[in-house]
Amino acid sequence: MQPHTIAQLAHVELLTPTPDESVAFFKNLLGMIETRRERQSVYLRGYQDTYDHSLIVTESDQAGLGRAAYRTVSEEALDQVARGVESAGLGRGWIDADIGHGRAYRFETPDGHIGEVLWDVERYVCDERDRSAMPNALQKRPLQGVPVRRIDHINYMSADVPATKRFFEEQLSFRCRERVELGDGTELGAWLSVDVLAHEVAVMQDMTGARGRLHHVAFWYGIEQHLNDIAEILRDRDITIEAGPSKHGITQSPFLYAIEPGGNRIELFGGYGYLILEPDWQTRTWTEANLSAGASMYGLKLPPTYFAYGTPVVEIAAEAATDLLKHAPAAMPVS
Amino acid sequence: MQPHTIAQLAHVELLTPTPDESVAFFKNLLGMIETRRERQSVYLRGYQDTYDHSLIVTESDQAGLGRAAYRTVSEEALDQVARGVESAGLGRGWIDADIGHGRAYRFETPDGHIGEVLWDVERYVCDERDRSAMPNALQKRPLQGVPVRRIDHINYMSADVPATKRFFEEQLSFRCRERVELGDGTELGAWLSVDVLAHEVAVMQDMTGARGRLHHVAFWYGIEQHLNDIAEILRDRDITIEAGPSKHGITQSPFLYAIEPGGNRIELFGGYGYLILEPDWQTRTWTEANLSAGASMYGLKLPPTYFAYGTPVVEIAAEAATDLLKHAPAAMPVS
Amino acid sequence: MQPHTIAQLAHVELLTPTPDESVAFFKNLLGMIETRRERQSVYLRGYQDTYDHSLIVTESDQAGLGRAAYRTVSEEALDQVARGVESAGLGRGWIDADIGHGRAYRFETPDGHIGEVLWDVERYVCDERDRSAMPNALQKRPLQGVPVRRIDHINYMSADVPATKRFFEEQLSFRCRERVELGDGTELGAWLSVDVLAHEVAVMQDMTGARGRLHHVAFWYGIEQHLNDIAEILRDRDITIEAGPSKHGITQSPFLYAIEPGGNRIELFGGYGYLILEPDWQTRTWTEANLSAGASMYGLKLPPTYFAYGTPVVEIAAEAATDLLKHAPAAMPVS
Amino acid sequence: MQPHTIAQLAHVELLTPTPDESVAFFKNLLGMIETRRERQSVYLRGYQDTYDHSLIVTESDQAGLGRAAYRTVSEEALDQVARGVESAGLGRGWIDADIGHGRAYRFETPDGHIGEVLWDVERYVCDERDRSAMPNALQKRPLQGVPVRRIDHINYMSADVPATKRFFEEQLSFRCRERVELGDGTELGAWLSVDVLAHEVAVMQDMTGARGRLHHVAFWYGIEQHLNDIAEILRDRDITIEAGPSKHGITQSPFLYAIEPGGNRIELFGGYGYLILEPDWQTRTWTEANLSAGASMYGLKLPPTYFAYGTPVVEIAAEAATDLLKHAPAAMPVS
Repeated sequence: MQPHTIAQLAHVELLTPTPDESVAFFKNLLGMIETRRERQSVYLRGYQDTYDHSLIVTESDQAGLGRAAYRTVSEEALDQVARGVESAGLGRGWIDADIGHGRAYRFETPDGHIGEVLWDVERYVCDERDRSAMPNALQKRPLQGVPVRRIDHINYMSADVPATKRFFEEQLSFRCRERVELGDGTELGAWLSVDVLAHEVAVMQDMTGARGRLHHVAFWYGIEQHLNDIAEILRDRDITIEAGPSKHGITQSPFLYAIEPGGNRIELFGGYGYLILEPDWQTRTWTEANLSAGASMYGLKLPPTYFAYGTPVVEIAAEAATDLLKHAPAAMPVS
Repeated sequence: MQPHTIAQLAHVELLTPTPDESVAFFKNLLGMIETRRERQSVYLRGYQDTYDHSLIVTESDQAGLGRAAYRTVSEEALDQVARGVESAGLGRGWIDADIGHGRAYRFETPDGHIGEVLWDVERYVCDERDRSAMPNALQKRPLQGVPVRRIDHINYMSADVPATKRFFEEQLSFRCRERVELGDGTELGAWLSVDVLAHEVAVMQDMTGARGRLHHVAFWYGIEQHLNDIAEILRDRDITIEAGPSKHGITQSPFLYAIEPGGNRIELFGGYGYLILEPDWQTRTWTEANLSAGASMYGLKLPPTYFAYGTPVVEIAAEAATDLLKHAPAAMPVS
Repeated sequence: MQPHTIAQLAHVELLTPTPDESVAFFKNLLGMIETRRERQSVYLRGYQDTYDHSLIVTESDQAGLGRAAYRTVSEEALDQVARGVESAGLGRGWIDADIGHGRAYRFETPDGHIGEVLWDVERYVCDERDRSAMPNALQKRPLQGVPVRRIDHINYMSADVPATKRFFEEQLSFRCRERVELGDGTELGAWLSVDVLAHEVAVMQDMTGARGRLHHVAFWYGIEQHLNDIAEILRDRDITIEAGPSKHGITQSPFLYAIEPGGNRIELFGGYGYLILEPDWQTRTWTEANLSAGASMYGLKLPPTYFAYGTPVVEIAAEAATDLLKHAPAAMPVS
Repeated sequence: MQPHTIAQLAHVELLTPTPDESVAFFKNLLGMIETRRERQSVYLRGYQDTYDHSLIVTESDQAGLGRAAYRTVSEEALDQVARGVESAGLGRGWIDADIGHGRAYRFETPDGHIGEVLWDVERYVCDERDRSAMPNALQKRPLQGVPVRRIDHINYMSADVPATKRFFEEQLSFRCRERVELGDGTELGAWLSVDVLAHEVAVMQDMTGARGRLHHVAFWYGIEQHLNDIAEILRDRDITIEAGPSKHGITQSPFLYAIEPGGNRIELFGGYGYLILEPDWQTRTWTEANLSAGASMYGLKLPPTYFAYGTPVVEIAAEAATDLLKHAPAAMPVS
């Protein structure tokens, strides 16, 4: 077991055609804190996010992923990752220090999602009034909405799941914890982590054949009741809840999926079903035989959109839709 | 406001073609306590049910409702209800004392569901070992399954909702708390109570045109997390979960619907969304405009079976199915 | 069983020497909504309180109870209660229509707490923006703090528990559901309701011998997790939590007790442990033998303040303290 | 940052003078599964523990810790740890394969607690009937009691906290995440982990001056409501709850402490307050200024026993008690 080079997902940039509404969603409903505004971007964090920001909301023509930034375990690991990615032909070069962090190396996944690795980060300093009395907590719990605590994970749609998965394993030191493989050998999804968590990155097949799309970014509550609380609030405010509150079998995660006003899918994450403490954990594979339990521990049928919708939104050509239906097992209903 | 004559739902008899499996469901998974076996029936109660039994499971050719028994507020009220029901032509006559209770008057709803009213009841006496130290609790919390506390309510399917509703209002002193009325005047459902609860009895349209069927019987947890706990157990044991855990807008009730092995739908009920403390509460009416929120506060789409399946199970004739689809609003998808 | 004349606790007036801080507590932390300000008073309600207000915060020299107002079941019941109270020599006379309600009859309990009964009330009308889509809910869930839903009950301290209890039974149609009686015949407390709830009014002995004091007013969450959520917030904001989150055996209530900035004890109430659906419920009596379970189902020792502190705050004379200790059973530690 | 050599706490052996009652506690109330009985020991696991056992209950004259076994990240790491511990003069030598695992190296902490490190483990194989349909779960959720999922952590009492802490850091690759240091430089406690968890091992000062004692072993629920559920059951069955359900500020952990029938303190652990994803986390230090929040986020006062009771139980000599009181800060009340 090689020591891992990546420590954690540090922040994600979301693109949105409706930046005011998107920022209001994250601030007013999810209780996130705005730390800065620069040019077309607003920087936000959950109250237990330790760095300057964990989310950047950037105005754009259409919804989608700007970039996801990963923090390495050390300065050396940053250089090591940069070299590896460059050799693999997926490097985009170094970036000077940016807001909230030092130099970063930019890359693309094989599917075209933009990523960055970085080491130096600026820690969030809470003002006196909001500072927690507890040295292991930055900040008092906010009084706004149902406040998320921190960023949790990102889920990429990919036209080529095996290639994107291999990239995270080989270049970014992730280990595949769970995966879905159909009887015909198609790998529909993979859940990876650098830690005891069941996933910090997920890759799911983009059945439309599009490349570089985002399935969702997840923020953490840790408490299942908070999914019910925010569900009530989201429906009151006419925010679409796509699915949940319920619980996946895959990763055993309590979830709620909502579509933020800009169109990006956001997961609110209730807890951790299990932790992978075994050092020699064997990747678990879900198949047609148990995928129904994988999609939902409680028997909820995920809506077809769950398997086809991502950002940027794409029109599904007739042939793609046919192909998509062909690959969809009974357990994964697609319209 | 007339004083009510009915105090509470006392017990329900369920018919089942698979009595052993049905009893095992209630005892092993829902932690109910068997109090007696007599002839074809097993008598059960939840650990906070105060009488000898709240559920009778009786072997039969097919699933369905045997009878629902209501306790009156007094001996006089029992006679008063009996007289009224008899005058209305729905009486079936007096029954001598039966297991766990004294004389009872049997009746039919206008839709043909069998009911009883009674006053004298036998209280459950817990043996020393299981007795709670608390005088306001009969019994220690059981160690089996995820134990339900007590019976909560019954939901009748009815070919004629207004008539069945009126029967409960006029003969049994229930008040209608919420109802669904479509734009064409069709009354699809009614939720009634004799108390501050939003419902102790519900009546929903049987779109198949059948009479006398049962939609579900509900048992109470009071705590939403227990719906998640039992959901995990039910799926592990291959019990069908039809919908939930989620929350209705109508009555604001956290719910989970499962099909017990005999085929009857059982609701597990998580809490009370609201209590009707106002003495002059006005019946609330849901319409096509808000029925989607009524079916689900969190946006869950209830499955078509929810609006058509009941016990006894009936074959749906082609014409009935067509009619059924015609009446179903967009918010209530029916296959 | 006589039909009851009182329907519910309608609102409570709290006196406070620090009105701004008290109002900020109820609005910012408990998410209550301000509906009016008149003279020295601010009117507030929880988001599921149906009338104009359920709480009045009034500036005063010292903390304490202004008055508690009860709504009757009808206009006739109002006159009936007024006549009864007047005959009992505890009447204070009629009051003209006041803010949010029509004529009211004012009275004193035998212990000197001020009360009112009234029938006509003004219902809260939510503005368009905050109105819930659900006809059985007035208002969307607020985004501020951990919002309480509605007023729940009041707990009076009394120098003479039996007399105060009898007053509520005889004049206000309450039934005693649970009580504490020591071996020497002292009645330490009583929990009463007009409905299926285990208590809407409680009376507990004032061991200091003072009269007319308030133990606490309770607001309802209905969900135990919300007690944890608000506990975190209260401690962050330096609000004293006296006890909890935990659960009483008496009434089986999940509780948290906090002291609002003006000094009044406020209970946040997590759910209902049990409902009294039996029409012939026999009052349960707790004694020294089980009072430990009565105070706390989970074994938490309530602090001495719980049995001695009330508002207005009184100095405890040495002899009173001695007496107080003498009466306190082992299960009820008093400093 | 050195790669760590230890992966996880694998199992703990508890000594008990009442083995039947202790085993009944773990099986009947906590839903643990017995996997074997050999000589004086019963082997048990939670339903998500992945190895043959996580708990060994062994008959003995008095309660206390038998041993705690840690699994290394690899075979090489096992040899490396053994060499290091041996050089430090704390080795006890190799042990042949034992029940459920291969060769192990035995050691003592500087305080005299017995430990083992091992690599080869036998995985639990669930029989067909209890096997989960989910490949990432071994076993269906048990139907007995309120079932714990897996072992979580161990808390050692130590006469010399700094020495024991250093041993875990230097020999077993743990990192200190949080600690308590008083103004006079006394280090009262330390919380350590090899992973993103805030603690897998804790060391707290044994104020009695005794050596080698156990404070508690913790089992994981992950859901706060389950602490309430088990609390109800424990009290019903006359098991002492020492404190909780409540939440520590230190490690932000929801907790309940019970004393199992043999006398050992057992923690039931509700969730994770926070995860340490930052690779360069700086150890947090609690002091007299904030220790009250550290002991309890909600303001609960931990009982004096919490700071003095451990197993084996020791008589506290007068001078030790005096010393103990002298060191105890106001925030940590000791009788």
